[in-house]
Amino acid sequence: MSRKPGARRSDCPISISLEIFGDRWTLLVVRDLMFKGRATFREFLEAGEGIATNILADRLAQLEEHGLVERRAHPEDGRRNLYRLTEKGVDLAPLLVDMVLWAARYEDTAAPADEVRRMWDARSEFLAEIRARWAAADPI
Amino acid sequence: MSRKPGARRSDCPISISLEIFGDRWTLLVVRDLMFKGRATFREFLEAGEGIATNILADRLAQLEEHGLVERRAHPEDGRRNLYRLTEKGVDLAPLLVDMVLWAARYEDTAAPADEVRRMWDARSEFLAEIRARWAAADPI
Repeated sequence: MSRKPGARRSDCPISISLEIFGDRWTLLVVRDLMFKGRATFREFLEAGEGIATNILADRLAQLEEHGLVERRAHPEDGRRNLYRLTEKGVDLAPLLVDMVLWAARYEDTAAPADEVRRMWDARSEFLAEIRARWAAADPI
Repeated sequence: MSRKPGARRSDCPISISLEIFGDRWTLLVVRDLMFKGRATFREFLEAGEGIATNILADRLAQLEEHGLVERRAHPEDGRRNLYRLTEKGVDLAPLLVDMVLWAARYEDTAAPADEVRRMWDARSEFLAEIRARWAAADPI
């Protein structure tokens, strides 16, 4: 772990969270891992928002360093890596769900209306499903 | 409103949210407005994380442009501005509460344990209180 409490700007929990993942590219990679079934460098790169390779490499390294993501060699091609959220990483699910709900309320998005309604009406259930899907997927 | 859907990187609700507030300084200002009772440029500047004046000015302008923050002249000093969250801005409360809970779980923070416990045990109540405090405060 790379945590250096002395190097932090403040001990406010919101500030600490933002030092770890307060960058749009970081959370887009978490989104890809959590919701989109993407797990390799190339899949993140092709996610559609146009992340640059050096930024992606940096953000993956930071996610790993902060313990939100684990990496292992691809079983079929040892030169490639497979990434997976840790429990600390999947525990960002409530936050990402809040983002979907906020954007669906205030902006034009591609979020399917019925899924958004489920997130509103059965937030805990929805979160439990994300967690269960994560736990069931091939753990490292 | 400055919304230019054509200029967006994707129509994913998470990506859209992150284009609007996916920057640590932006959410620290929202935190100051929501939880810390700060309302002026100087108060944001002195919040403790060491934001630079040009970054603060830029982020406040963006928050206003996206309709998350309103600005008016200070009643006692017309040269100063008072900032206030809009409803769209205060609706980021669930997200900030999730950040507090996540950081309190995984990092060393200054979050008071009893307040964190209340957020866990009575999340909806806690959010309703934030909303009520916001509605009761002098609206523009």
